[in-house]
Amino acid sequence: MPEPANQNNIGCLYLVPNTLGEENRLSQLPHVIPADTLKQITRLRNWIVEDAKTARALLNAINQIEPLGHPLQSMNMNEWRGPLSKNKSSLKPRELLAPLLQGEDMGLMSEAGLPGIADPGAEIVRMAHQLGARVKPLVGPSSILLGLIASGLNGQSFSFQGYLPLEPAERAKKIKQLEQRSKQNHETQLWIETPYRNTAMLDSCLSALSPQTQLCLAVDLSLESEWIWTAAISEWQKRFPNQSAMNEVFKNRPAIFLILA
Amino acid sequence: MPEPANQNNIGCLYLVPNTLGEENRLSQLPHVIPADTLKQITRLRNWIVEDAKTARALLNAINQIEPLGHPLQSMNMNEWRGPLSKNKSSLKPRELLAPLLQGEDMGLMSEAGLPGIADPGAEIVRMAHQLGARVKPLVGPSSILLGLIASGLNGQSFSFQGYLPLEPAERAKKIKQLEQRSKQNHETQLWIETPYRNTAMLDSCLSALSPQTQLCLAVDLSLESEWIWTAAISEWQKRFPNQSAMNEVFKNRPAIFLILA
Repeated sequence: MPEPANQNNIGCLYLVPNTLGEENRLSQLPHVIPADTLKQITRLRNWIVEDAKTARALLNAINQIEPLGHPLQSMNMNEWRGPLSKNKSSLKPRELLAPLLQGEDMGLMSEAGLPGIADPGAEIVRMAHQLGARVKPLVGPSSILLGLIASGLNGQSFSFQGYLPLEPAERAKKIKQLEQRSKQNHETQLWIETPYRNTAMLDSCLSALSPQTQLCLAVDLSLESEWIWTAAISEWQKRFPNQSAMNEVFKNRPAIFLILA
Repeated sequence: MPEPANQNNIGCLYLVPNTLGEENRLSQLPHVIPADTLKQITRLRNWIVEDAKTARALLNAINQIEPLGHPLQSMNMNEWRGPLSKNKSSLKPRELLAPLLQGEDMGLMSEAGLPGIADPGAEIVRMAHQLGARVKPLVGPSSILLGLIASGLNGQSFSFQGYLPLEPAERAKKIKQLEQRSKQNHETQLWIETPYRNTAMLDSCLSALSPQTQLCLAVDLSLESEWIWTAAISEWQKRFPNQSAMNEVFKNRPAIFLILA
C-alpha cells in the first residue's frame, strides 16, 4: 500500500504548463502563466520533458521575466515521450523520478499546454503517486478547455476523443458516431487534428454531419491570431463553400473541433 | 447567417476566470490568474456574472494588485444563473449582451473557476457568437483540468459527467455504467459532487467499483490544503476502511472524482 501523499522525505512533482505556440513565447507568457507559477518554475532543477529543445526555449523565455534559480546547463533534464515512443534509450518512469526519492522537487513539461492531456506525461504522474510523492498541478493554457468555454456548447457534459482516424471513410464514420453519442447524451464531443489536415477534417465534418448540428472550430487559441466560431453546419457550409475558403482561415493552424448535436 | 467574427463595431466578450475557493482570494490570485489577464479584467465595465456578490469580491481582490479602471459602483453588472434558474426577473442572453452591440467589451464570470464549464454561461457565449461578437477565453483555474492532469489517468480520452444521481441505488448504477464505459473506450470518467456529499460518494465508489479500477480524488485544488491521490479501489479500501477515516480528509471540501477501469 502506498504511503500517504506529501511525505516530508519525498520531493514534489510539479506539472508545469507550456505556451500553446512557439511564436513570441516571451510576450505570450504573462497572458497564459500566472506570475507565482513562473516563480515556482524558476526554482526547479530536475526536469522530465517531452522535448528538451522546447523545454529550454520556455525556460529561456521565463528567465527574461524571472531569473532562473539554476543555470540551464546545470539542470538535470531527461526526455519522456510516452510508453510507445521509438526512443528506446529513454529511461523508465521510475528511473526518471529517482530525484523525488532523494527529496528533490521535479518538473514535468510537455511541448505545448499541460502535460498528460493530449500529450505524454500521465505514466510519470501515475508512478509519482505510487512512490507516495505529492503531485502539484499548475495553472496554464489548455486548448481543450479554452476551446470548450469559448464554444458556448455544453460544458456540463463533454467528452474528448484525441485524434480521429486518418482514412477518409473511417473518419466520416467516426464523426457520425460522435454526433450520435452527442445527441443521445446531450454531450459536447471534442477532438484535435494535426494542423495540416484541418481543411480535410472540416470538409469531412461539413459532409458527414446533419445541417442543424452545432460545430465550433477554435484556431490558434491564446495567440494573437486566435479565431473561434460556433454555428450550425448549414451556416458553415454557406460561409466556407469550398476548400480554398477554408484554407484562407485554417491552413496549417492548430485547431480544436467541437460538436453538439 | 451571422457576420464574420471580430467585427469592429461589436464588442468582445471576455470569459473571465475566478478563483476555486473564497478563502484568501487575494493571495490565491497570483497563483491562478496570469498577470496580463488581471490587467485585462480591470479594463472591463460591463459584466454578466453568476453571482454579483462573489464577482465584486473578486474585483475587490484584483483591485489590490491592479487598480480597477472603473469604480465598482459605476459598473454595469447583471446576473445570469442559467436558463433553468428560478430568478424569473433575469434578463435573457440577448438583452444581457446589449452593450456588445454598442461596441462595448463585456466580461462573463462564474462563482468559481471558468464560466460555462460545470457552471452557467454557455448560453451567453452561444448568443455572443450569434451576434457576431468576438469571444475571448482567458486562462485560469479549472478543477476538471487540474484534477485530470494530476490524476495520471488517461488524458488522451476522457469524459466529464457533471453531477451523478442523488438516490443511492441510482448513483451506484451510474457509477457502474461509467466504469463499463471507461473499460470499453479506455476513457477516464470525471464527475463532481457537492462538498457535503463527498464521503457518501466515496463510500458508493468503494462499494460499486471493481478492486482493480483506478480512482483519483482531487480535493481543494489550487488551495493550500490541496490533496490528490490516485490508487486502485483495493488500496482505497485499505486506507479508508470507514466513513470516519474519509471524513477526516474529505468532509465538506470541494472534490473531483476520476476513474479509469
